[in-house]
Amino acid sequence: MTSASHERIKGKATSYDVARHAGVSQSAVSRCFKKGASVAPRTREKILASARALNYYPNAIAQGLITKRSNMVAIIISNLTNLYYPEVLAELTQRLSVKGIRVLLFSLAAESEVDDVLDQVWRYRVDGAIVAARLDPGQLAAFADRGVPVVLYNRIGEGLPAASVCCDSTSGEHALVEGLVEAGHRLFGIIAGPADSYVGEERVQAAQKRLNQLGREAVIVRGNYDYESGDTCLRELMKITGRKLDALICANDLMAIGAIDCARINFEIDVPRELSIVGFDGVGPAKWLAYQVTTVRQPVRRMTEAAVSMLIERIEQPGILPEQRLFAGELLAGQSARLG
Amino acid sequence: MTSASHERIKGKATSYDVARHAGVSQSAVSRCFKKGASVAPRTREKILASARALNYYPNAIAQGLITKRSNMVAIIISNLTNLYYPEVLAELTQRLSVKGIRVLLFSLAAESEVDDVLDQVWRYRVDGAIVAARLDPGQLAAFADRGVPVVLYNRIGEGLPAASVCCDSTSGEHALVEGLVEAGHRLFGIIAGPADSYVGEERVQAAQKRLNQLGREAVIVRGNYDYESGDTCLRELMKITGRKLDALICANDLMAIGAIDCARINFEIDVPRELSIVGFDGVGPAKWLAYQVTTVRQPVRRMTEAAVSMLIERIEQPGILPEQRLFAGELLAGQSARLG
Repeated sequence: MTSASHERIKGKATSYDVARHAGVSQSAVSRCFKKGASVAPRTREKILASARALNYYPNAIAQGLITKRSNMVAIIISNLTNLYYPEVLAELTQRLSVKGIRVLLFSLAAESEVDDVLDQVWRYRVDGAIVAARLDPGQLAAFADRGVPVVLYNRIGEGLPAASVCCDSTSGEHALVEGLVEAGHRLFGIIAGPADSYVGEERVQAAQKRLNQLGREAVIVRGNYDYESGDTCLRELMKITGRKLDALICANDLMAIGAIDCARINFEIDVPRELSIVGFDGVGPAKWLAYQVTTVRQPVRRMTEAAVSMLIERIEQPGILPEQRLFAGELLAGQSARLG
Repeated sequence: MTSASHERIKGKATSYDVARHAGVSQSAVSRCFKKGASVAPRTREKILASARALNYYPNAIAQGLITKRSNMVAIIISNLTNLYYPEVLAELTQRLSVKGIRVLLFSLAAESEVDDVLDQVWRYRVDGAIVAARLDPGQLAAFADRGVPVVLYNRIGEGLPAASVCCDSTSGEHALVEGLVEAGHRLFGIIAGPADSYVGEERVQAAQKRLNQLGREAVIVRGNYDYESGDTCLRELMKITGRKLDALICANDLMAIGAIDCARINFEIDVPRELSIVGFDGVGPAKWLAYQVTTVRQPVRRMTEAAVSMLIERIEQPGILPEQRLFAGELLAGQSARLG
């Protein structure tokens, strides 16, 4: 190939260029790159050699218009989850990529901002979506109307049934609360997540309800899922309770870690002897030697695997009915709380 | 609209359906959704009302085939960066999204695995790419050949000039080394990153060179950028040096944090009085009260902003020449090292 002919098709080789180069028809080239279509072995070899020589790649987007499959899946996730629980996106992306599916990433400033991105989700004709954010019934219906299968991650369909994969927050919080009450803790504090966080609310309500059933009450303050919230919320709780707090339940591990540091370093409180602190999630830093947070670990590998396989099922069989999969979390005893 | 007619077009409203519903031509509908094309105001209103009624959205992918713009940008990043420095992806995604550009995410198991995803990058006809992974000259040339602008993030073009945004690792490591030498440290250890990590190698080489210039030598072991590596590599260095190590330079903050915990908890060493430990990056946990890592903070906001604006420039003006932008990092004195 001369440099001039190379120049002419730079970055723009089409199936027609390949057909001309290989001395075959364009439809043969097209068949050669279509799954399951038949081409004679020798023709295929010629075409693949020409494609390599011309740097030709079939246009996935144009193919998507024909096959009605874009091989793209939207992941809709909040910035906070992204930053403080990066394992979720990493695992989902890796699992989809192994299946030859690309991730179109939508990161929300707040969980309640799904509406801002849905227009874009429709426009890109994704094959499906994994949504780790709140969807109201109207938004769920919009997915159904457009025939875009959706799997909710750590949320369930509100108002409408939907395919979902969840960690069992309720049982997890119950186990933590029961262990803390059994160990004799008396004055409980709760650091909740942002008001629009589905899992945050679920966890706090479960903890509060079980505490009440066991005859305990809790002072609740609201954080933003970050390390700093653990610090500021613990200070607030200390003020409200006159430093009498002896058990603290945090809606995620990052806030528990912030509270542990604040208790030890700012208040010189012995954790867990004087104050028990528990989290939720089982993120990387919760296992660090300095913290060893008592928490509930979400089985993120099994959950992401389930989310991806449920979505692929629904892409391949659009009529399939909703299914909820609820995974038990694992109580990690850790070193940040005394449990009975 | 009756339920039957709604059913008929469920999820599939086309520009022809909208045209029929609005009583206009398909080309009027097409013009209505094309930027800069003219449609009479009353016609536009009718079309928009019909589009709303039919849940019609113009197909971004089909439009992309016509305009030659997909409004998608590939971000190619390693899983490790994703997991241990999530700020980078979060900031890039948010900044692109503000510009109306979607992120097609490619997450690599190892930096050296770029080849595995390039085929997919070409197939999806992305408008450009931000690459936080190593590209060899052949891969850089492939981007140029296909007319896909690329901006390297924390890498520079190897062999070929390329647009890039970097934090100045060399000056950052020099400042750390000079401070440690001035404070009188004698026996240095270095925990390097994975062998295929561009920034990791750059940092280690810069530290080693400056140490040698100042008449010091260092024992180097290699980690994997994670917390656990900080622990295992410090144990190894302690064995090699007969526990005489008094300064430890880590290629990122996560390994520095792992080493701090290991030193304090497993070896009962006072950090920084007996052992100074420094990191690099300035990630969230480096600021936590329990660590306050002495490190160099990358100006991630300015760097991601620069990467996005450089890429958009190159998408809009394909002929623009390569530019390298090198951002100084900020030395954070912290509490994990004694600096002179």
